[in-house]
Amino acid sequence: MSENEKTYEEISFEEIRDEIITLIGAKNYIHARDLLLSLNEADIADVIAEAEDELGIEIAVILIRMLPKDDAAEAFSRLSVDDQTGIIERITDKELKSILDEMSFDDMIDVLEELPANIVDRILEKTTKEERKLINTFLNYPEDSAGSLMTPDYITLRQEWTVGEALAHIKKVGMDSETVYTCYVKDRGRRLLGLVSLRSLVTTDEDVPISELMVDDIVFVNVFDDQEEVSEDFTKYGFLAIPVVDNEKRLVGIITVDDILQTIQDETTEDIERMGGVLDSSDKEYFDAGIFHQVRSRLPWLLILMVSAMLTGLVIAHFELLLADMVILTSYLPLLMGTGGNSGSQASTLVIRGLALGEVELRDAARVLWRELRIGFICALCLSAINMCKILFLDRQTISVAITICCAQLIVIVLAKCLGGMLPLFAKKIGIDPALMAAPFISSLTDTFACFVYFTLASIILGL
Amino acid sequence: MSENEKTYEEISFEEIRDEIITLIGAKNYIHARDLLLSLNEADIADVIAEAEDELGIEIAVILIRMLPKDDAAEAFSRLSVDDQTGIIERITDKELKSILDEMSFDDMIDVLEELPANIVDRILEKTTKEERKLINTFLNYPEDSAGSLMTPDYITLRQEWTVGEALAHIKKVGMDSETVYTCYVKDRGRRLLGLVSLRSLVTTDEDVPISELMVDDIVFVNVFDDQEEVSEDFTKYGFLAIPVVDNEKRLVGIITVDDILQTIQDETTEDIERMGGVLDSSDKEYFDAGIFHQVRSRLPWLLILMVSAMLTGLVIAHFELLLADMVILTSYLPLLMGTGGNSGSQASTLVIRGLALGEVELRDAARVLWRELRIGFICALCLSAINMCKILFLDRQTISVAITICCAQLIVIVLAKCLGGMLPLFAKKIGIDPALMAAPFISSLTDTFACFVYFTLASIILGL
Repeated sequence: MSENEKTYEEISFEEIRDEIITLIGAKNYIHARDLLLSLNEADIADVIAEAEDELGIEIAVILIRMLPKDDAAEAFSRLSVDDQTGIIERITDKELKSILDEMSFDDMIDVLEELPANIVDRILEKTTKEERKLINTFLNYPEDSAGSLMTPDYITLRQEWTVGEALAHIKKVGMDSETVYTCYVKDRGRRLLGLVSLRSLVTTDEDVPISELMVDDIVFVNVFDDQEEVSEDFTKYGFLAIPVVDNEKRLVGIITVDDILQTIQDETTEDIERMGGVLDSSDKEYFDAGIFHQVRSRLPWLLILMVSAMLTGLVIAHFELLLADMVILTSYLPLLMGTGGNSGSQASTLVIRGLALGEVELRDAARVLWRELRIGFICALCLSAINMCKILFLDRQTISVAITICCAQLIVIVLAKCLGGMLPLFAKKIGIDPALMAAPFISSLTDTFACFVYFTLASIILGL
Repeated sequence: MSENEKTYEEISFEEIRDEIITLIGAKNYIHARDLLLSLNEADIADVIAEAEDELGIEIAVILIRMLPKDDAAEAFSRLSVDDQTGIIERITDKELKSILDEMSFDDMIDVLEELPANIVDRILEKTTKEERKLINTFLNYPEDSAGSLMTPDYITLRQEWTVGEALAHIKKVGMDSETVYTCYVKDRGRRLLGLVSLRSLVTTDEDVPISELMVDDIVFVNVFDDQEEVSEDFTKYGFLAIPVVDNEKRLVGIITVDDILQTIQDETTEDIERMGGVLDSSDKEYFDAGIFHQVRSRLPWLLILMVSAMLTGLVIAHFELLLADMVILTSYLPLLMGTGGNSGSQASTLVIRGLALGEVELRDAARVLWRELRIGFICALCLSAINMCKILFLDRQTISVAITICCAQLIVIVLAKCLGGMLPLFAKKIGIDPALMAAPFISSLTDTFACFVYFTLASIILGL
């Protein structure tokens, strides 16, 4: 009982982490190890990462070495690629082998996928020919495919078995399997016949045959399906595991929900970063990516958008004479470009997210256009009316100037909403990631036509 | 065997859905029901939602009525609030009660939370006093708290039991529990002592006592914790369920991973929409929210940003005389405002996401600033150099004009990167959602100081 009390004391994980690091700094390894072992594997990995940050990679190696093999493997698989590589370069081949042997198959594949080729070769030399063949098959599935997420460690039951026989089988092999909570039944051609949940096994009498308990309307994915589709299936159905089949519909592995949570987070991060104009920032955390890596992932998009801004400059230069006549028009340019860009960003954000969640589809293009047209018109009316009052009564401009600016604003907002709604759909249609059609791109585009609409209207209405 | 073949035929869910809707349109209900029942509950809900879209709410009522009670309850809990309300208004109190009785407790609470108060009252009248008390407790947990996500239907084991006794208990109560895969052990004060996974139960001999099997370093959350923290715990630890305790550390419920997946999706959508300048868009899908609802969630931010754009206009108006002397300066304004806004958006996007994932914390402010300063400087140097060549050799402007523009660009980009990096941290510090400090806001702010820096430099360098 006193043992359990510790979880209720008001010590936060961060405090324990800092204490362990202080102990290590003072070379009090025995104490540090005891504290470390009282933590969950995910927290152990956190402590090692933090210790590496503060005290260097040598300390991370010491920590990994002083953990029991299974904890070392669990923690190692959760470290960043940089930390993993650093540790691998410093431990013996024998130590490396013992860590990899303790890892679950899919964790090992995840580690191998990220490591430099020469280290992977060093690891593969230590495996049997059979293991090597299996590892190579898994390593060859495209990045971001269901195949790259799955594990071959699942439990197979036979349909002629009884519940009692199935439970006896699970008792024997359950600890080596990624999950025991969903078990699979295959025919002789290894094609999936059905699945049995452990819940139904433990709540059913021992002599009932598996064939009676088996569920046969199964949702499965193909090894080459994109991981985004797989995450959608998990969110939609709430499954704990989804079976993966090859092109001949043979069961080749399963994906479990704990692995998909990380995938969902990574996919979302990629989407959000692309929408913010950051391309290909890799899976590194904010502080882990090097300065030049960051520049590389930010500069190309800035360059493209700068060219687009130069185009807007050309439009303005074209109307130079008009502007020389009426310099005050310039001071309303930020207003037009700003509200236009923001209106367009709102529409594109909603459509990009709708596409990602499957709420909006390509065939909905006309519906999106009609919606954004109406929403744009109402927003534009409100903003232009307020603006009209401001220009007439605060700025004390002439009516024709006010009409020029507000008409331009109305047209720009409606156009921006429609463009913002349609461009993500167009991008998807031609096979580009719709997330690229977000705020930065839409704003730049809106700037160009805002200038064009504004000055064209000015030369017509003001007769300049 | 032939039964199972159907899952391998190349019929997509969309085709089955369309076929069912065609059958319903032709009033061929028997056939429609058979096809419907061959689907998973999540898919059944999809078909009902689509049928409601195309044929009206009456059809949804017919479909719910012709399903077996448990399927009806499962499908109902997955419908949108609008569809649920529509159906409840059209069915008898007896039918409503039978659907709610079949629902799992947390699904029922989710439904009740979203329904109008008068309908909730109608439902509560049908429950016993004890149920009503429990329901009211759950309804009173703040929205987005762990309490609002949890279910009280978990399995409790006693530490003096053996594995055999525990399995017998699970066999008896397992079907009414939200999950059987993690079971909990409490002391007499209902405080959590430990947890036992079903995997360890089925792989251990029958006579081993639970106290030996029990894991006691438990990760738990408080009922009032924000659901975002709960999702982070699930992603970090990969658990299937997390126990929820009250302020006295008594176990009051559990949250299961299938419920958190939907929560993660909703949280992400909210973040992305706020980053795109859409506020409080509720949980409705893109096409489900009314036009005016959409205007309400977009207009306020557009208004605020319009005011900020008016400020930029004031800055320009202030330099009117300078501009009259050199109109060509105007044509470089979009370039400065554009690259500034985009540079700032990139930085703020990365920091906002870093904050959401816990990779960046408030105490990292100085590190963020130093990073963005360096990245900003390198990006600014590259872009300004390219721009310098363009202004000198393509636009054929004088050296002093080129220097003015490029110096302004350099300063604006570096400033924008630093602002973009710092403002999300500042927002978090003062308790505002950092997601609001994304592209739309940062761009508007950058516009203002881009104009100021540009024209100030112009008046100094060009001596205007």
